[in-house]
Amino acid sequence: MVKVSWCEGLRFEAEDRHGHKIVVDTEEKFGGSDQGFRPLELFLAGLAGCMGMDIVGILQKKGGKIDSFVIEASGIRAEDHPRKYTKITMKFKCEGDYKREDLLRSFELSRDKYCSAVAMLKSSAELEFVI
Amino acid sequence: MVKVSWCEGLRFEAEDRHGHKIVVDTEEKFGGSDQGFRPLELFLAGLAGCMGMDIVGILQKKGGKIDSFVIEASGIRAEDHPRKYTKITMKFKCEGDYKREDLLRSFELSRDKYCSAVAMLKSSAELEFVI
Repeated sequence: MVKVSWCEGLRFEAEDRHGHKIVVDTEEKFGGSDQGFRPLELFLAGLAGCMGMDIVGILQKKGGKIDSFVIEASGIRAEDHPRKYTKITMKFKCEGDYKREDLLRSFELSRDKYCSAVAMLKSSAELEFVI
Repeated sequence: MVKVSWCEGLRFEAEDRHGHKIVVDTEEKFGGSDQGFRPLELFLAGLAGCMGMDIVGILQKKGGKIDSFVIEASGIRAEDHPRKYTKITMKFKCEGDYKREDLLRSFELSRDKYCSAVAMLKSSAELEFVI
């Protein structure tokens, strides 16, 4: 369960059941105070975090050593309301000592089998992956 | 654009284009260190934040005065991989000086017209609202 409480303006604080807190906010021109993530960008963070955990976990089990792993997630929104993402692009950059084929297999297992976030978004947006 | 960088274990840091940062992590039994939100719970925070901003903004434009506004968002996950949310329940609690019909209308406008997050998730999970 996540509890999301209004603070002021359009700023909210989200708290999970373990007590972690994050600020959700929007641009000042919309009535926000720009103190935290935009709601929809939390989807990008969740999607990247979900795939990232799968890939790092699987690649390490295959014996890969990871020095750095970065995902850049961006979305294109529809012009008309409700302005959902029509396309999300995920760019993966992995540095370390690993086999390329193991990275690709880890990515495919996440995309096709394990990642809950991919499963939730693939029916509403085109997902593009660059790896 | 959101940049999500691996830290250690299964802990990641997400940073948006304005420099806001959040920690994404998981349970220790899965290899995480429980220092931040779970990836999929960011979807709940994003969904609640998106609807919350709509409702607060519209209700205030209708002359309502809000003392407190809290959304509790919870999800039921499938047992089998990819374990996506099959049902998400959102409970709204609004206290203040406003007309009940204005709150309901603000909620309906968010759900049916404005909320990008609802539009992205309604095709993959049953959404239940308690208001």
